[in-house]
Amino acid sequence: MDLRLAALAILPALLLTVLQARADTPAKPPGMAELLAASTAEDWRDPDPEQTLYLDLAAGRVVIELAPQFAPNHVANIKTLVRAGYFDGLSILRVQENYVVQWGDPNAEDPKLKRSLGQAAEKLDGEYALDRSPDLPFAAARWRSLCGVLPASAPGFPVAGSGKRIWLAHCYGMVGAGRGDTSDSGNGAELYVVIGHAPRHLDRNVTLVGRVLSGMERLTTLERGKAALGFIDKKETMTPIQSIRLAADTPAKDRSALQVLRTDTPLFEQLVEARRTRREDWFLEPTGRIELCNVPIPVRQTP
Amino acid sequence: MDLRLAALAILPALLLTVLQARADTPAKPPGMAELLAASTAEDWRDPDPEQTLYLDLAAGRVVIELAPQFAPNHVANIKTLVRAGYFDGLSILRVQENYVVQWGDPNAEDPKLKRSLGQAAEKLDGEYALDRSPDLPFAAARWRSLCGVLPASAPGFPVAGSGKRIWLAHCYGMVGAGRGDTSDSGNGAELYVVIGHAPRHLDRNVTLVGRVLSGMERLTTLERGKAALGFIDKKETMTPIQSIRLAADTPAKDRSALQVLRTDTPLFEQLVEARRTRREDWFLEPTGRIELCNVPIPVRQTP
Repeated sequence: MDLRLAALAILPALLLTVLQARADTPAKPPGMAELLAASTAEDWRDPDPEQTLYLDLAAGRVVIELAPQFAPNHVANIKTLVRAGYFDGLSILRVQENYVVQWGDPNAEDPKLKRSLGQAAEKLDGEYALDRSPDLPFAAARWRSLCGVLPASAPGFPVAGSGKRIWLAHCYGMVGAGRGDTSDSGNGAELYVVIGHAPRHLDRNVTLVGRVLSGMERLTTLERGKAALGFIDKKETMTPIQSIRLAADTPAKDRSALQVLRTDTPLFEQLVEARRTRREDWFLEPTGRIELCNVPIPVRQTP
Repeated sequence: MDLRLAALAILPALLLTVLQARADTPAKPPGMAELLAASTAEDWRDPDPEQTLYLDLAAGRVVIELAPQFAPNHVANIKTLVRAGYFDGLSILRVQENYVVQWGDPNAEDPKLKRSLGQAAEKLDGEYALDRSPDLPFAAARWRSLCGVLPASAPGFPVAGSGKRIWLAHCYGMVGAGRGDTSDSGNGAELYVVIGHAPRHLDRNVTLVGRVLSGMERLTTLERGKAALGFIDKKETMTPIQSIRLAADTPAKDRSALQVLRTDTPLFEQLVEARRTRREDWFLEPTGRIELCNVPIPVRQTP
């Protein structure tokens, strides 16, 4: 598809201005700001309240969209924990520079003090990758492997693939379920968020369960833990978790009104193309490539 | 080179223990922790005090190693500014989530209030890339392009390359010189540090001048700016810069005693290999790849 023609269809007024201002040069394709400004209501979706978590801290809320398509058992277990109030009053245990923020039960290693998992499973097999399938809504996307030129970000998550397998990628803001040394030692009771350069070596080694939609700054600005691996050694200095709730269980007036850009639209294709070949005035060298974790999946306040 | 043989030469006692414990399985190559524990004084270097900056904030110090090999004119200009006390009392102007922290003169746009650059140049041509040359110490390293399998991180910086050209890469912790829309509009008076996933689309678009060796957490935990692009709109809420000094101009007792792992050694090659194919017990899938910005260039307190 000729990107300029598509842009002309979407942004006639804007591009007319550009054409008038630069009659001597061809019109440039629109950048992300112009594309989002020209988006319509149909380009956005409301995250499913049954698959949306609110992590509430004293500093404010972190909104997480779960990925049941990729990690159905972990997501179900996390929802069981959340609905039992398991996380309420637990703590952020680890803040490691350029790596992760992690939370859970500070007493998890103490059989007497640790909180019961209730009806939730204690052990779950890792959910690391899926077979590519024409039935999956993201199967039609164009993939490349780890350092792909074009991403498969559908539906709303960064997806990497190789051969017949696809998997969620450890990009900034992705949420995973910590585990011990064995593959079945995680259960979703200890969760982490990537806060630095994507640690892609974790891909297919640990189960990713979702993505932070808003509130990353409430995690990234936390004081770094002083013990090895960024763990916080004194319980009294840990940031408490007020609660984790499903949006579906939250009264309408207390919900966060957010929308996510759909990734199965022509607009998203244009957005990726605009980010792959940067044409804003500031850019001298348009690169021509984009790495999976640099592909934006925009979130906005519901208008 | 057989990595296990090399490791045996370095780590006989450690590997003997491993072999005894796992007589039924082949010895695993050492991980990063073991490699660094077995390093010798010759594996580390002292950063040149003439090429090391101390950015002092109320919260503590950020140490930056400059890269005159890649950006000689910008580095020289920055040193002229630093030695004239240009940055002392200026401010952090921008803290953008998953992107950059940036500092400079809050009044740079006001001809009456802006601070004089003194003897420093006001405009410098961008220093974006170099011709690969056998005379350069890093020319012997093995490169790959943007998403390389093996990095060329010498001497102490992440380096990308394509064809005959090489350039510093916008990895986490890299320091660059902001510029306006034209290539010659930067001068080093406004500097930024990457605090998120590597924005590799900035490579070859803006001049990188060095890397943060320590103190990243003093930048990454700053409150995010509330204006567009993370700029801080109220001057009274900006974090002040107490001073920026060259280590060479700092009394010995006030210097930060840091060493950087040399990148021109067999140990560094082993370290990259150990990170490329993760063999620690926790890893199920060793990946077999490493992205340039995930290659560690360790820094330690001078023993």
